[in-house]
Amino acid sequence: MAGRYEHHDVVVVGAGFAGLSAAHALTDAGLSVQLLEARSRVGGRALTRYLDDGTQLDLGGQWIGPTQLRINEIVQRYGVEIYRTPAHGAAVNDFDGDRREDLLPDVTELFDSLEAMCRRVPAESPWEAEEARQWDRMTFASWLDATGRPDVATRYVARVVSGGLLAGSPAETSVLETLFYLVSAGGVQSLLGYEGGAQESRVVGGAQVIADRMAADLPEGVLRLGEPVLRIEYSDDGARVESTVHAYRADRVVVAVPPVIASRLRYDPPLPPLKDGALQRVPAGTALKVHAVYAEPFWREAGYSGISTSAGGLLTETVDNTPPGAPRAVLTAFAYGDEAVELRRHGADARRASVLERLAELFGAPALSPEDFVEYDWLAQEWTRGCFSGHLTTGAGTTFGSVLRTPVGVVHWAGTETATEWNGYFDGAVASGRRAADEVVRALRP
Amino acid sequence: MAGRYEHHDVVVVGAGFAGLSAAHALTDAGLSVQLLEARSRVGGRALTRYLDDGTQLDLGGQWIGPTQLRINEIVQRYGVEIYRTPAHGAAVNDFDGDRREDLLPDVTELFDSLEAMCRRVPAESPWEAEEARQWDRMTFASWLDATGRPDVATRYVARVVSGGLLAGSPAETSVLETLFYLVSAGGVQSLLGYEGGAQESRVVGGAQVIADRMAADLPEGVLRLGEPVLRIEYSDDGARVESTVHAYRADRVVVAVPPVIASRLRYDPPLPPLKDGALQRVPAGTALKVHAVYAEPFWREAGYSGISTSAGGLLTETVDNTPPGAPRAVLTAFAYGDEAVELRRHGADARRASVLERLAELFGAPALSPEDFVEYDWLAQEWTRGCFSGHLTTGAGTTFGSVLRTPVGVVHWAGTETATEWNGYFDGAVASGRRAADEVVRALRP
Repeated sequence: MAGRYEHHDVVVVGAGFAGLSAAHALTDAGLSVQLLEARSRVGGRALTRYLDDGTQLDLGGQWIGPTQLRINEIVQRYGVEIYRTPAHGAAVNDFDGDRREDLLPDVTELFDSLEAMCRRVPAESPWEAEEARQWDRMTFASWLDATGRPDVATRYVARVVSGGLLAGSPAETSVLETLFYLVSAGGVQSLLGYEGGAQESRVVGGAQVIADRMAADLPEGVLRLGEPVLRIEYSDDGARVESTVHAYRADRVVVAVPPVIASRLRYDPPLPPLKDGALQRVPAGTALKVHAVYAEPFWREAGYSGISTSAGGLLTETVDNTPPGAPRAVLTAFAYGDEAVELRRHGADARRASVLERLAELFGAPALSPEDFVEYDWLAQEWTRGCFSGHLTTGAGTTFGSVLRTPVGVVHWAGTETATEWNGYFDGAVASGRRAADEVVRALRP
Repeated sequence: MAGRYEHHDVVVVGAGFAGLSAAHALTDAGLSVQLLEARSRVGGRALTRYLDDGTQLDLGGQWIGPTQLRINEIVQRYGVEIYRTPAHGAAVNDFDGDRREDLLPDVTELFDSLEAMCRRVPAESPWEAEEARQWDRMTFASWLDATGRPDVATRYVARVVSGGLLAGSPAETSVLETLFYLVSAGGVQSLLGYEGGAQESRVVGGAQVIADRMAADLPEGVLRLGEPVLRIEYSDDGARVESTVHAYRADRVVVAVPPVIASRLRYDPPLPPLKDGALQRVPAGTALKVHAVYAEPFWREAGYSGISTSAGGLLTETVDNTPPGAPRAVLTAFAYGDEAVELRRHGADARRASVLERLAELFGAPALSPEDFVEYDWLAQEWTRGCFSGHLTTGAGTTFGSVLRTPVGVVHWAGTETATEWNGYFDGAVASGRRAADEVVRALRP
């Protein structure tokens, strides 16, 4: 039974970007840390897969933007190489068959309205916005409907914002939560762009490389893989953390997993009512990301960049996801919300057929015959249960929202869903881990 | 290690009204059943407490209506006595200080509109309503706002329907989910009334008596208390159910706990994406029910029945909860949604003071000085985590709603949240348990 009650200053639960960042900040502060990860790998919602020929597929998060200062600094520190998202050719915006490179004026004006509304929402405390209650009681869908703009324009904005950013449908989140998400990233333009925006750069070797380097740089013994944490016992005197393998004692705990997963740990004593109520109200996104692998980037010859955004159809977005020098070409497609749910009702074959058919509509018949077709459903993953990230349900922003990152005694909370800058991104995850570590350091080293 | 792998035809998880009903239906069909309950008692969200002098307080569900045929039949079968909810005097409807026995015409007309809309929603499959998508993408708050009715009228309806029935705020649920809940109970009038409605009768000895009788009538050994189930392993060949105490093998499992609790069990293999996504989207209600106990029912002398409904203030509803022949008098108050969250932020003393102050405004100064003041927060209870019941979040009715009660292999799902008649009530729980049992019987005895 050696090791059953190892003592550490801090146990960190979850070795995604939040947990890794917390562990680094805590060890840097001279504290002893045990970082426990359920999976046999680090990186959380970043996962890179290599096909036999070396073609790199980022199955989860993959982009880095220039204003994401924390993750950029980490990338630099570890000498991780990044490259510009390729754009060989024209982007397609498909407005129900009206295909154009630019946006409809109605869409631009809707984005401008959102940008203006964002300025009224403080990222640190969206519940304090003057219109917080009014915006929390209305879905983003209702707000769009009320603008009176043409259906195709509101649908496009819904799919880009509630889908492409929040990974759900405009029916699922409030105006307040939507604006909070936008403002946490610096606004609409900062989020949507490739050049200068959140999708500007990709990682050579895949986003998981960053997490792997962060893990490798932790002191020996800090990280333990393959140890799902099931239970946290806590009191004023410290905590006892039970994984499937061991039990650990610590003065403080940092829970650095998505809210849905955090809600499924057992706590003794049970979490306070408002904390539990908050964790009940952050369902994870339903994004489906699939990859079609071709011998050649046939779309480039036809003048397309592979980047598309559609107001209709099962696929909201596509992107040329071919890394430079890759042996084959990759077209990656995204579905969100209602379409992502519908695609999950299909069998794998029907899903593949639907996706390829839509890719062919967008880029031509060669899309119908990929050499490989790879999908990975984060909603099926026991230790994630949805992607990109979780969002507060309607009405919860003004009631439970303020509780999400509040410590419960010696238990602290990280994860990109608790971030106030770049919420939902790697950068927000890093920020949240450091913020939780800072809380712990201040508590243990007053 | 005797008993570690006991085999039964069916393991039922949770001995609330759903689990008890499933266990009865299954044993009646000749199947061997193990019913596992986490707590040291049965009854789930029904819990009766007796003060030292014998005064009965129903801390959870307490009412039975005449059209709830299943629970009435059970009450009769076990010789449980029920009595009419007392009404000695006038009810108060408080419209921001305009206190009246009748309703504002705007309120009546809003109820009529809802009644008409209910007729367009099939309780078995609300997602098939013609307006399903439109009603799922809009909160009930937005619908009320769009009626253009006076604020005091829409607030009253919001508090009565989204609060008094769904135990939340109108910002939290869609029009579709709200209508489904109403229609599952036969419509607005069926739900709101005392006389002839869902609150017509109470149970002598408390609602828990019914569950106790149901448990006592199960064959010896079927029920085991104090055994929280943590994990369900399942395959085509059957299941292995692990509690904190034992492990059981069974051909089929019925999970009869609220969705939030069901989502926190571990499943191997992990639940399929859509099932898990559905369970992520049924947060439990936030009702707070508190009891002020007085030597005398002073409100009756002033001509009040103790029944009140308010468009404003922290308390949405009050009721004279004194059982006939009780040694003392009980005034029970309810808060929901935003007010219930706010009251939870107060300390116990401040909460008590706020509640009593409002009771005094309604019924006079004697309300300020109760002999006892009892509260019980279901959101704090590890094995319930909210009351009255859970509701699908906005947008989930048309996407995930149809999955809630779909079996996953040999695992079946009960609980009042899965009911299509009297969803959220004892009667719905009974119906759901019988429906799940029926699925099992048909599978095992084809």
